[in-house]
Amino acid sequence: MEAGERPRAAVIVTGSELLTGSITDRNGPWLARELGELGFEVAHVLLVGDRPDDLDAALRFAVNSGCVLVVTSGGLGPTADDLTAQVVASFAGVELVLDEDLRKHIAGILRGWAVRTGFGGPALDEANRKQAMVPRGATALPPVGTAPGLVVPRPGGPLVVVMPGPPRELRGMWPAALEAPPFRELLAGVPAATSLSLRFFGLPESEIASTLREFDSEMDLSGVEVTTCLRRSELEVDLRPKPGAAVFAAELHGALAARHAKHLVSDDGTTTDELLARALLERGWTVATGESCTGGMLASRLVDRPGSSAYVAGGVVAYSNTAKTQLLGVPAEMIEEHGAVSPEVARALADGARERFGADVGVGITGVAGPDGGTEAKPVGYVCFCVTTGGGLVLARDPRLPGGRSDVRERSTDLGMHLLLRAAAPRRAE
Amino acid sequence: MEAGERPRAAVIVTGSELLTGSITDRNGPWLARELGELGFEVAHVLLVGDRPDDLDAALRFAVNSGCVLVVTSGGLGPTADDLTAQVVASFAGVELVLDEDLRKHIAGILRGWAVRTGFGGPALDEANRKQAMVPRGATALPPVGTAPGLVVPRPGGPLVVVMPGPPRELRGMWPAALEAPPFRELLAGVPAATSLSLRFFGLPESEIASTLREFDSEMDLSGVEVTTCLRRSELEVDLRPKPGAAVFAAELHGALAARHAKHLVSDDGTTTDELLARALLERGWTVATGESCTGGMLASRLVDRPGSSAYVAGGVVAYSNTAKTQLLGVPAEMIEEHGAVSPEVARALADGARERFGADVGVGITGVAGPDGGTEAKPVGYVCFCVTTGGGLVLARDPRLPGGRSDVRERSTDLGMHLLLRAAAPRRAE
Repeated sequence: MEAGERPRAAVIVTGSELLTGSITDRNGPWLARELGELGFEVAHVLLVGDRPDDLDAALRFAVNSGCVLVVTSGGLGPTADDLTAQVVASFAGVELVLDEDLRKHIAGILRGWAVRTGFGGPALDEANRKQAMVPRGATALPPVGTAPGLVVPRPGGPLVVVMPGPPRELRGMWPAALEAPPFRELLAGVPAATSLSLRFFGLPESEIASTLREFDSEMDLSGVEVTTCLRRSELEVDLRPKPGAAVFAAELHGALAARHAKHLVSDDGTTTDELLARALLERGWTVATGESCTGGMLASRLVDRPGSSAYVAGGVVAYSNTAKTQLLGVPAEMIEEHGAVSPEVARALADGARERFGADVGVGITGVAGPDGGTEAKPVGYVCFCVTTGGGLVLARDPRLPGGRSDVRERSTDLGMHLLLRAAAPRRAE
Repeated sequence: MEAGERPRAAVIVTGSELLTGSITDRNGPWLARELGELGFEVAHVLLVGDRPDDLDAALRFAVNSGCVLVVTSGGLGPTADDLTAQVVASFAGVELVLDEDLRKHIAGILRGWAVRTGFGGPALDEANRKQAMVPRGATALPPVGTAPGLVVPRPGGPLVVVMPGPPRELRGMWPAALEAPPFRELLAGVPAATSLSLRFFGLPESEIASTLREFDSEMDLSGVEVTTCLRRSELEVDLRPKPGAAVFAAELHGALAARHAKHLVSDDGTTTDELLARALLERGWTVATGESCTGGMLASRLVDRPGSSAYVAGGVVAYSNTAKTQLLGVPAEMIEEHGAVSPEVARALADGARERFGADVGVGITGVAGPDGGTEAKPVGYVCFCVTTGGGLVLARDPRLPGGRSDVRERSTDLGMHLLLRAAAPRRAE
């Protein structure tokens, strides 16, 4: 099989605060996904501080990596350390010029802001002028906040697309960037991308690796870039065909799904959360939670999806034994006999939640999240789960989950979601 | 004031899955923070795919950026695309050799895992051998999972520290990396860092910028790198002195805290969550939650801290009106008259939670998280909060919060935490 290569793109995210570890970048992953879907191969995502030399070096690194496109985010604000426009202009070999229309446009936005907040004066005028300076020959993109974006062609490439740092502004401006003539022209030459994905639960990464090695001995896999990503208990496998390899990628996708059908959650990118929501809606079921160690994390995850009020009745965070007894009717003797962390109590939490909220399905979770409270019989990570329905279905598990307190709580939430999914949408094989 | 420069370090995070946007890197920010605290200036954080050429280019980019240290994460797994050890060996100009002790050590770990999961066989043996290959002259760091880390000196620099990708393994292995002789030697020459921080609530970033401009006209601020970071409703200000500027940084830190005392949450890096936990423990109070739109997110955040069972009684996720009425005693007529999203219902949720759980302080949250359900009077983002205590204290708010569904829910959780903190630890000025 022959497969071409995709044109490469780089993402540069600026902001010294990203290098102190006090904040996690959200723009890099978002832009990387967008660029991948447009058909680019993302060469790298580079986070640099607000230092002109470092930004310049980052732009040159993208050139050396063979990128035809660089998207930057950040450094467009009104303060002195916001230097992106200037560095990009110099990188493109042009000077900054005042865009009078843009200045007036920003002035209008700032006036409204000044009236609302009571701030204003010469500092604002200076910010206005600074933000309206545009590299000669660049396309300015109208501000979503107050900072305009820029599309800056450089002789010999790459095309530089300059976006603001606040994620809301960046995402809001992205459609306009795609419509800018130089970007549109570049995109016309990019082969379409069709990424395929598989989601497994409870399958070790080494099993996929071993299957791929086996397939590799029978056929040429080089036309498809396969990446696996373990997200706690779920394994995501992403297949990205190079140009010309779409049909083969679809075959490989089907073969992997068939080989590991027992652990397959979805083969079209659908998340567990979405599958569960659809299954509950289809059945017309409502769900109620009785949580101890997860402390509301499962309820919060269920509520995360818009429209969840149609199937989430509610939940109780029964962290203390009194709460378990008084709010969810877990018998005090049961707690005394079996312990608060026990399969019996998990089931009583599920039944109690279901009954108190008048729900169709209930889930109970109680476990030792740590770091303290573990015993030899019930060590840190030991968590009891139960899902029960009004129809008499009972699904119970009591694994020992690895990791620290937050790992155990997050994995417990995952497992709770998967047990609910199994109750609401039983797989054919079962 | 004179201030030197800090030695530079770079972080390289490998993993093609980071460039498809399907996962957000957690290792880069964590390592950046650690390196900053050790006294390095972090030049950049670079995310690259599992392609040997790109990783090699990333290592060379760090050399060109003047870095004396590079920390990599990822690419140590058993699959064919895990190539970090090999690329780093070639970068350092040495060959890979099998470390027999390490192989046995990993084999022992894998045996236990194979017994527990039922997976095993030749795939496992191959993984074992691959993971025990070490660049000649490097220090191997014992695995936390199954992958060992590496400390690899390169003639002429930089020192390369190779860490595994899973965040839990990376963090668990970090102390051993710091103890490896070549890293210890390097650290001996790094001037100590004393980063100072300030945490504000409800203070716009532009106010700090304006204060800094004012200070800048009176004194030379160049010895201190000040970064501000807006995390939803909280503003974190980080002051990082260059060598020799520690005293001045402390003065600036004090001046900023004094100027914005009204919005100050902490001046020593203590988080809101920690302050609240301390205040509740000091008073011997327990807290109960009655949540609608946040759906358990506040309860989960309270439970997140180890030892929280001492002060978290529990909570109810009262997502439906029936749940509000039946589980927390919110009068049905009140919901009919004022609506489920109203200051009245927020108070009834707080009182109901406090009473049902026998807690000392209760918090009620009800709001329109969106995207649907907004009206002109109660638009998306309108959220009602109330905190009440047995002693008769009532704190109520009903702001309109910006952003989409998850923004509104997260900001609501923040505001709930701050209202609880205000109830448990009233500030002197109030």
